[in-house]
Amino acid sequence: MTVPTIERCPAFDLSLYLVTDAALCAERGLAATIEAAIAGGVTMIQYRAKNSDFRTALAEAGMLSQLAKQAKVPLIINDRLDIALAVDAAGLHVGQSDMPPDIARQLLGRDKILGLSVSRMSEIAALDSSLVDYVGLGPVFTTATKSDAAQPLGLELFRVLRRHISVPVVAIGGIGHDRAGDVIEAGADGIAVVSAICGTADPQAAARHLKRTVLGARR
Amino acid sequence: MTVPTIERCPAFDLSLYLVTDAALCAERGLAATIEAAIAGGVTMIQYRAKNSDFRTALAEAGMLSQLAKQAKVPLIINDRLDIALAVDAAGLHVGQSDMPPDIARQLLGRDKILGLSVSRMSEIAALDSSLVDYVGLGPVFTTATKSDAAQPLGLELFRVLRRHISVPVVAIGGIGHDRAGDVIEAGADGIAVVSAICGTADPQAAARHLKRTVLGARR
Repeated sequence: MTVPTIERCPAFDLSLYLVTDAALCAERGLAATIEAAIAGGVTMIQYRAKNSDFRTALAEAGMLSQLAKQAKVPLIINDRLDIALAVDAAGLHVGQSDMPPDIARQLLGRDKILGLSVSRMSEIAALDSSLVDYVGLGPVFTTATKSDAAQPLGLELFRVLRRHISVPVVAIGGIGHDRAGDVIEAGADGIAVVSAICGTADPQAAARHLKRTVLGARR
Repeated sequence: MTVPTIERCPAFDLSLYLVTDAALCAERGLAATIEAAIAGGVTMIQYRAKNSDFRTALAEAGMLSQLAKQAKVPLIINDRLDIALAVDAAGLHVGQSDMPPDIARQLLGRDKILGLSVSRMSEIAALDSSLVDYVGLGPVFTTATKSDAAQPLGLELFRVLRRHISVPVVAIGGIGHDRAGDVIEAGADGIAVVSAICGTADPQAAARHLKRTVLGARR
């Protein structure tokens, strides 16, 4: 089986999308966690550090950008366009209350990946798919790693909402080994995980296992 | 007497530099306060909103950018390069823990004004005057509008530190009508104020009075 790479410009693969968490990654160290996850097969990395001070976030993002470039895995910065530009990240991921996608696209240019979080039908209806390269749809299940997350959609609503989205979709929120296959079968192009990799004793093995589950669930 | 405009690219005039404060400006409304201050003669405006949510800050900065362009008064954005770029502000002002000036300059280009806050000799020694267009030096006196401000310098230390800075200097921190003249005589090219304009019943009259004091104190 081959990994289907989604044809966008630049190309990216949502199959196994790791979102960093300062607390969960801190135990092993952010760099070591991400290196292990890359070795295990993560296909994208999002640096998310909502509560870090700016200089710490900038330094961590810069370090991850180097790692990610060496591994040829796109690094996406959550929320902060200034950090994304400063570290020459592969892209930016914005939420509904962050920078609007039209402004973000204008400032990023066409060569960067732009992702948007959506969690309900009204946000999907407002989505301009000419601006956004992919969507993060969720939370699918209950999550402990995002304090301001909306109510979980559940698998059935996820499946319905996904059909209304014309860009690639990564599922997010409470997804571990046991539910990764269901989410892919419900239409996700990939899964975004935090604790299922960062919160484990062996991030490389966890990533390898999740990747196999995602690829195996594809038809 | 003419207003000495500092010859930089782009040109700007630090004489009376208004820093916005959400709480103080809210009573009258941000737009009305700034319009009155412009009518009274402020020469630069800095939008500072450390605790606003992003979309509010973006909308307010966008509104001020329009106002400032009409009035041909440069609008400087505090801290957030993403907002400065998004609203096409005239410049960015960074603190010692915000984006480093070298990265900010690279992302802003040469056509934007870049300011930096300094409050001690070590920060002045580290200053690269080829990157920064002006410096905000302070707090000169005790201020109530910046919760994380350092110890006040006092006039004498301000005077000494100012001599070590080769770019234009705007004095900040607790400066009102009564002390504006002393600060200019101590070497400031202008004064940055918050409550001396925003916290008054008549911002236009307050600005006019301050401007006259600054110009009158120049030799």
